[in-house]
Amino acid sequence: MKVIVLGGDGFCGWPTSLHLSNLGHDVIIVDNFSRRAIDIELGADSLTPIRPMATRLKAWKETAGRSMGFVNLDVSRDFAGLVELLRREQPGAVVHFAEQRAAPYSMKSARTKNYTIRNNLCGTHNILNAIVETGLDIHLIHLGSMGVYGYETAGLPLPEGYQTIYLKDEEGGLLEREIIYPPRPGSIYHLTKTQDALAFQFYNGNDGLRITDLHQGIVWGTQTDQTVRDERLINRFDYDGDYGTVLNRFLMQAAIGYPVTVHGTGGQTRAFIHIQDTVKCIELALENPPAAGEPVHILNQMAESRRLRDLAEMISERMGARVEFVPNPRNEAAENELVVKNEKFRSLGWKPILLSDRLLEEVEEIVRKYRERCDVSCIPCESLWTRGHKPGAPENGGLS
Amino acid sequence: MKVIVLGGDGFCGWPTSLHLSNLGHDVIIVDNFSRRAIDIELGADSLTPIRPMATRLKAWKETAGRSMGFVNLDVSRDFAGLVELLRREQPGAVVHFAEQRAAPYSMKSARTKNYTIRNNLCGTHNILNAIVETGLDIHLIHLGSMGVYGYETAGLPLPEGYQTIYLKDEEGGLLEREIIYPPRPGSIYHLTKTQDALAFQFYNGNDGLRITDLHQGIVWGTQTDQTVRDERLINRFDYDGDYGTVLNRFLMQAAIGYPVTVHGTGGQTRAFIHIQDTVKCIELALENPPAAGEPVHILNQMAESRRLRDLAEMISERMGARVEFVPNPRNEAAENELVVKNEKFRSLGWKPILLSDRLLEEVEEIVRKYRERCDVSCIPCESLWTRGHKPGAPENGGLS
Repeated sequence: MKVIVLGGDGFCGWPTSLHLSNLGHDVIIVDNFSRRAIDIELGADSLTPIRPMATRLKAWKETAGRSMGFVNLDVSRDFAGLVELLRREQPGAVVHFAEQRAAPYSMKSARTKNYTIRNNLCGTHNILNAIVETGLDIHLIHLGSMGVYGYETAGLPLPEGYQTIYLKDEEGGLLEREIIYPPRPGSIYHLTKTQDALAFQFYNGNDGLRITDLHQGIVWGTQTDQTVRDERLINRFDYDGDYGTVLNRFLMQAAIGYPVTVHGTGGQTRAFIHIQDTVKCIELALENPPAAGEPVHILNQMAESRRLRDLAEMISERMGARVEFVPNPRNEAAENELVVKNEKFRSLGWKPILLSDRLLEEVEEIVRKYRERCDVSCIPCESLWTRGHKPGAPENGGLS
Repeated sequence: MKVIVLGGDGFCGWPTSLHLSNLGHDVIIVDNFSRRAIDIELGADSLTPIRPMATRLKAWKETAGRSMGFVNLDVSRDFAGLVELLRREQPGAVVHFAEQRAAPYSMKSARTKNYTIRNNLCGTHNILNAIVETGLDIHLIHLGSMGVYGYETAGLPLPEGYQTIYLKDEEGGLLEREIIYPPRPGSIYHLTKTQDALAFQFYNGNDGLRITDLHQGIVWGTQTDQTVRDERLINRFDYDGDYGTVLNRFLMQAAIGYPVTVHGTGGQTRAFIHIQDTVKCIELALENPPAAGEPVHILNQMAESRRLRDLAEMISERMGARVEFVPNPRNEAAENELVVKNEKFRSLGWKPILLSDRLLEEVEEIVRKYRERCDVSCIPCESLWTRGHKPGAPENGGLS
């Protein structure tokens, strides 16, 4: 199938593009390199030496014998270009990673809040609008986030997108309804994902668009079966306070002798998934599109839930690092339970990679191999959720 | 109190500005004249001869002896200008009408869809972000829409913003929760209002912003106690297929001998409010702000529900016009019941103006007085919700 991967140069987009190409799909990557531009802005480069797009594509051609297309286009600004691209390529599916994806960056400043809102909301809407405009029957697969649910679940397992509720009628009888799970976003980034979900519901209902929305957990790991095949194919690895996802940050910190810094009590429980499973889940979503007339498919794309302080302790024990608790820059519950349903992907045959599997070692190897590229000043999270909060940095500045 | 009225040149914004000024508030109007620009784009002018802003302000000064400020600013694009304005003026409240407000226009073309999304979402977010950025304790009053609820209420009355629901735990016990009423927008315009609601919830929770969101019914009428005081203060009156609200359109059609065109069966039941009550409700919202730490106030700003074909028949009888049923350009249920709670405004002492009151006559006078300004070619609604729909025009072209 011809598949366009929007944001195909990014942390999830690049390995997904390789995986889909490897499966035999005809992949066209669309990216405006906004993530690389933010690297420059933050002065925080990928730990791994990611190559320019042309080098990546050449390496893939040499390694796998397969070509991928590339178009430099800002999905959030170039509606006409997007329509023209869809008309020309007539893809069967579009995979949409083209959003600003870091919660801390989305809370960093007034400017980054505005950027995240405009980029993500106009981008997602442009895609929906462009699909309608072309009249093509394109399956849209969007990367959402587990964070749209909020984390005040009060002991009930999180369903997959839809929640059965009951209303009391005037005689006290119960009426059953199914609704989109009431969202409770915890950052501007997560807010945009909940706003996207409303746009999906509308375009699905009004125009019959076929849409899959994947509520993904926190991604860990860096390499996939394809990115390891040549060093020029290496995936990015973020360890900085804004873009570094928590488990990868912990591993990086441990590898360089920096304290494993836990925000708040570490009682926050979150959902996790390995990057290798991200690409596998996209494959499964692509192979199992909604039928015409079906509501938006919403799947939880996560392998397991873990409490952050337990993760920190696990890494501390494995790698001999010290754990340090720092003020939480985020405005969130100090402690929460989290039980998440993921039967939909499991019913498609998915067997998730768990933290207890051997892949933690691979990440340790990566962080040890490239540790000289690390700039420790980038590690603390300095994006504050509100003015009253303090930065999530160790009091002694880290290395000591 | 110093009050900034964003979109203060528009159909609701202008009479609200006059009303608040009349009450003694220090009013500053902000507008970028986007609505007048759309008049030009559509070739459909206000039936009433609205004057330039400078003339309006001069007339108000001469009539009421009160000055209002004016700033030409695009709230959706000029974040820095907005922050500077708030810092300079330090308003106690901001009333936010600065959104593209016509459902048909929002569905007119790919371009107007994109415009509505960008203008409304970036505009609303800029305001929230600017309030946080200045650190000022500003009460934000936003005009939402009854349309955010959707109209599949299955016999239950629509609550005011929040809905009590029950979840079943694993033993079948009921857990009570209160959620924002699950939205079901029927157009891109309504979609933006539901997306706004999520932004309000986030900024209220994360930053403690004090916000009132008013879910307003369909506005009818044109004049208020202030706009009638001088012809130069006259409010706009839209009768075209995109911006003309249904009751005003019916009255206009009847006045010029055009058939009263009902979309579909006319079984759609909708909520209505007179423009005089719009301004009264804003006054009440302004006087009753949320306390610090309170959730977003959501009030239903509507007087009564009416079925559209009943309205058409009422006007047909009063004015001797013929009713014609035309294909419905919208993608919506053909028939619906609608019972809406409006206890919150009523508890503040509001006594709504009803259609049975005498104000229909006043609208008839307006449409008769200015009927020579009407361009009948603007009357049919040619904005189609989907490609399969047909324009809502009489088959014989109207006048015959």
